[in-house]
Amino acid sequence: MASHPPHPFDPISPPEIVLATKILEAAFPRVPLRYKKIDVQEPLKREVVPYIEAERLGQPLPARPSRLLQVLFHRQDTGAFFKALLNAGTKSVISAKELPKEIQGPVDSDELIEIEQLCLSHPAVQAEVAKLQLPAGVTVCNDPWIYGTDDPEETRRLFQCYMYIVATDHPQNNHYSVPCKFSPVFNAITRELVRMDYLPSGVDATTTDTQPWKPVKTIQYAHDLLDEPLRTDLKPYIVQQPEGPSFRVQDNVVTWQKWRFHVGSNSREGLVIYNLTYDGRNVFYRLSVSEMTVPYGDPRAPFHRKQAFDVGDVGFGITANQLALGCDCLGHIKYFDGYRTDSKGTPVLLKNIICLHEQDNGLQHKHTNYRSGAATVVRNRQLVIQMICTVANYEYIFAFIFDQAANIELEVRATGILSTVPFDNEKPGTTVPWGTNVGPGVMAPYHQHMFSFRMDPAVDGHKNTVYYEDSVPLPDDDNNPYLVGYTTEQTVLRTSGSADTSIPRHRVFKIRNDACINPITYKPVAYKLQTSPSQMLLASPKSYGAKRAGFATKPIWVTKYQDDELYAGGEFTNQSKQSEGLDKWVLRNDAVENEDLVLWHTFGLTHNPRIEDFPVMPVERVSVMLKPDGFFTKNPALDVPPSTQAFNKSTLHPEQPCCPVGRGKL
Amino acid sequence: MASHPPHPFDPISPPEIVLATKILEAAFPRVPLRYKKIDVQEPLKREVVPYIEAERLGQPLPARPSRLLQVLFHRQDTGAFFKALLNAGTKSVISAKELPKEIQGPVDSDELIEIEQLCLSHPAVQAEVAKLQLPAGVTVCNDPWIYGTDDPEETRRLFQCYMYIVATDHPQNNHYSVPCKFSPVFNAITRELVRMDYLPSGVDATTTDTQPWKPVKTIQYAHDLLDEPLRTDLKPYIVQQPEGPSFRVQDNVVTWQKWRFHVGSNSREGLVIYNLTYDGRNVFYRLSVSEMTVPYGDPRAPFHRKQAFDVGDVGFGITANQLALGCDCLGHIKYFDGYRTDSKGTPVLLKNIICLHEQDNGLQHKHTNYRSGAATVVRNRQLVIQMICTVANYEYIFAFIFDQAANIELEVRATGILSTVPFDNEKPGTTVPWGTNVGPGVMAPYHQHMFSFRMDPAVDGHKNTVYYEDSVPLPDDDNNPYLVGYTTEQTVLRTSGSADTSIPRHRVFKIRNDACINPITYKPVAYKLQTSPSQMLLASPKSYGAKRAGFATKPIWVTKYQDDELYAGGEFTNQSKQSEGLDKWVLRNDAVENEDLVLWHTFGLTHNPRIEDFPVMPVERVSVMLKPDGFFTKNPALDVPPSTQAFNKSTLHPEQPCCPVGRGKL
Repeated sequence: MASHPPHPFDPISPPEIVLATKILEAAFPRVPLRYKKIDVQEPLKREVVPYIEAERLGQPLPARPSRLLQVLFHRQDTGAFFKALLNAGTKSVISAKELPKEIQGPVDSDELIEIEQLCLSHPAVQAEVAKLQLPAGVTVCNDPWIYGTDDPEETRRLFQCYMYIVATDHPQNNHYSVPCKFSPVFNAITRELVRMDYLPSGVDATTTDTQPWKPVKTIQYAHDLLDEPLRTDLKPYIVQQPEGPSFRVQDNVVTWQKWRFHVGSNSREGLVIYNLTYDGRNVFYRLSVSEMTVPYGDPRAPFHRKQAFDVGDVGFGITANQLALGCDCLGHIKYFDGYRTDSKGTPVLLKNIICLHEQDNGLQHKHTNYRSGAATVVRNRQLVIQMICTVANYEYIFAFIFDQAANIELEVRATGILSTVPFDNEKPGTTVPWGTNVGPGVMAPYHQHMFSFRMDPAVDGHKNTVYYEDSVPLPDDDNNPYLVGYTTEQTVLRTSGSADTSIPRHRVFKIRNDACINPITYKPVAYKLQTSPSQMLLASPKSYGAKRAGFATKPIWVTKYQDDELYAGGEFTNQSKQSEGLDKWVLRNDAVENEDLVLWHTFGLTHNPRIEDFPVMPVERVSVMLKPDGFFTKNPALDVPPSTQAFNKSTLHPEQPCCPVGRGKL
Repeated sequence: MASHPPHPFDPISPPEIVLATKILEAAFPRVPLRYKKIDVQEPLKREVVPYIEAERLGQPLPARPSRLLQVLFHRQDTGAFFKALLNAGTKSVISAKELPKEIQGPVDSDELIEIEQLCLSHPAVQAEVAKLQLPAGVTVCNDPWIYGTDDPEETRRLFQCYMYIVATDHPQNNHYSVPCKFSPVFNAITRELVRMDYLPSGVDATTTDTQPWKPVKTIQYAHDLLDEPLRTDLKPYIVQQPEGPSFRVQDNVVTWQKWRFHVGSNSREGLVIYNLTYDGRNVFYRLSVSEMTVPYGDPRAPFHRKQAFDVGDVGFGITANQLALGCDCLGHIKYFDGYRTDSKGTPVLLKNIICLHEQDNGLQHKHTNYRSGAATVVRNRQLVIQMICTVANYEYIFAFIFDQAANIELEVRATGILSTVPFDNEKPGTTVPWGTNVGPGVMAPYHQHMFSFRMDPAVDGHKNTVYYEDSVPLPDDDNNPYLVGYTTEQTVLRTSGSADTSIPRHRVFKIRNDACINPITYKPVAYKLQTSPSQMLLASPKSYGAKRAGFATKPIWVTKYQDDELYAGGEFTNQSKQSEGLDKWVLRNDAVENEDLVLWHTFGLTHNPRIEDFPVMPVERVSVMLKPDGFFTKNPALDVPPSTQAFNKSTLHPEQPCCPVGRGKL
């Protein structure tokens, strides 16, 4: 490890994980503890801002803010669930609170494996499996699922195990192609079987007893298991940076093309961008994907409980893929590692969970003077910082992309495998109105992926204002005699609340600093949010699905900054009965004009599966952009050098021998 | 030239241009003709389809369809404007019609230069310039503008010249930074000055007489003219394809990764994709950007006439940039040339106006089995075919992007320079509600860019059906006891007409073939259109701006195919009084279910300039996608080889010397 003390934005280190366990073991002598999470606690903003401002301005640094750690754990003697805050500097407990029994912490990696094994070894499950009369070389596996709420009195920690039939001859056999029709529910604390659910597999909610399995043709994604040969006509495409990359990385601080930011990561959100500045000017204090929920549209029990909160229930940090050179990124790659705890409090290395590289994204700007033919051409070099998270069946690729024109993009790609259910679809024409047949005996229900992008702005300072701007026709009056005029209307969000997107009004959201006026436009400096307008949650407002996911009912939210308000769906989402997040916080009606505020954008995909999304889904890409709007006095990328063949070294395609006479000759 | 006869989809060749002039000179003996356009006439679909089907199926080819040429010309003796259709095979005139005098043909390259010179040499203009009392080294230039309609009786061919002050010391001085306050209007046939307009330059419509110019600081984009030094920290990024590209090009036919298409180009639309098949199956007959209009929102005369139809009034083919290796594309590049005529009928080579190359676009699909850790990773290789058009101040980059999962993307990037107007903005706070100050004395008015994407589908055949599908909650009844269920509603467009996009309903448009049922989904094979939902035209329906651009009032249109219905705004848009395009054709109420139909998508940008868009605009990117939806029985990219370091040859970033101890150690 680096020998210097951690920066306030640095991720947790192995010694800090060990320190946390030592502090708690001293606080709970002789009590066996099961650790779910040991991570850094978000530093207090009021302590951090003076520190990073001194860094930015090159001034003497004040004392480092307190380094706080957060631990979620169970007492193994009583089963009670605790949240502790520790001071790493003083090696002391700040607080250790037992949480109410209706609060469930997130699933952790060890727990998932334990439930899987518990399920497979349980006699009742084995009895069901026996009824399948599986042939040799075929077995069952299961995905333990977050148990979505449907009972206000439920306080047990539950998992619903979805079972699949899978051949044992290859580690990538696609079990999602062969879902079983039974699904046990377990209590994760007592390890008891709570109930054996049977799954509807026809066109209605009827279920049947387990019958001997009739083998079906499986739909495989792994290259080894395909029926068809691989394509042979794809030629290598190699990115070379003979002089190295244009970025510099010092510990967790990245500098590239006037950008500077601190790479944070934690077990819940995964990648976090801290303290983002451009050419020494503050832009954003913190950017992250705060929450995500995936509610399913199949109305039948038990599928109605399929509503994962992939951030709050699981965590992008602990599900982040350990990336391999040359597979997940192309070019010159810098990786960042992370650490998590296991259930015993031992640090676990998460190798290469974040990758950083440059990419070329076509042209950035071009103009040709048609009189002289003289052209100015500049390419669009980008810096990409990315993580890929596997949440059971699905993969999500999150990338923050920075460019030389001071744009910031959050790109989300959804891939991986559809969560499937059994469906007796042998008879031609058999379909359901809430899903797509994707293979023999298997159907993929409709669902939504709803993301919350949390933006804590610092546009030339921490006091900002959010407003939206609509484009509207000018009135039909003397000032608009030809009826072609149009203008913009501004609406300031003066108190915490939500807002809608609007395509018909070309609504754009902006974050401005009223204290800094652009000398040319005479308007406050601003960044604009180019939203991804999306259908909001389809579940009825009366459903648990909607009550738990208030953040997914409106695309735009503004709150006044408060420490501890990081997660759009609330701190504890697993088996939550209602949201303790955004929709609650805005009710304070805080003044948010010229304040330290947070802007949140809910966007997503209504994903009615195509059969082409199976057995592994071609990426579905969603993009949200943050762009300077009156932040500069001209295009900030003008000083990017021109695009030239001497620099880019492209290759001209040789003319075909079939055309012996040059096409250019007349 | 290649010795074989042209394919029906081949662009025009120099001998054909010469042939056309010979045929017309024989038909109009001793009449001086001024050629505006000599191009191929779109072949008759009923003749072409049997031919390309025989090609596709490897059957004996029928006779080649007639090769038709289209010529637009003026009789120089009478000024009359003609359209002629010629049969290149029989070397004969099919028709040569004098068009009504209210019809204006598009501007041609020679005409633009002639008007520019006429303007600069006219005594009245020179008298105004004299009043500016320009210092040495500074002169004026002008952009002749399409004269938007404001008078139903106008039949003259007019150009409005917008004048700018420009230094003479560099070919890329940015004249758009210094607009003049006078603007002459010329008759392009008689060469007469029609009127000297004076431009409003305050906060209202008031104009002033020309005054001596007070020099201002210009805002420059060319690298030579910048005040600031260029960035020195951008390192080379080189794409190498040591085994060559994965595409093959034979004449104008491109094959790549199961795709095959014919590259067409013409002077009006520029790039056209013909006869697109995937793995031997028909997908689209023809794809093109059919029209585009740019109406401005400044309500004051004469700015209300700024409404260019960049396709119909000018043409993307004749404004396409002649691309340079290593500047506009990166990697292994194949270029295609084009030809146009000059006003005398001489062929003019348009070198390298279309480029073809591959690109890497991150991951195509990935799944990690979290139990085994085994991952399948496939990268997203794409084929890009692109043209870049300079329409006076603006540049548009149009790319069709094909991928290995059978997706087709139309990507539009807007760049270039804002069309500016003079504005007396010295006094702080001086602004107008329809534009943005972008420099001293210069303002960029709000405007819209409205594109029409024409899709002539052939989804497994030429009889197709368009419908839209909305995602809606299931009713609150016994089948939806938990209120989380949702489903889709389909609406078939049975007769020609228009439709709206809808974000709240997640509306998706699909093109299906009811005669081909997918064996797994039990639904017709289909491609879906992922629209770019956009604000439609802001001009009042009562304005000429809207009457001329009916296509820009609705995002979706479906028409029954007819030869000659290629252009969304009608054939002749220059100074048109009303549209003769989409909005008229749909009134036929043609049956379009299971018919040979055309789908049109209007999308665009409401562009309220940022100051960062000046003096040259960072690309604004818009994307429309066509994706298979039940066209295949599984992900068609499964057979793409895995992403491996052996193939991709990435580079690992070296650890910093400041961190002597590996971060991976605990």
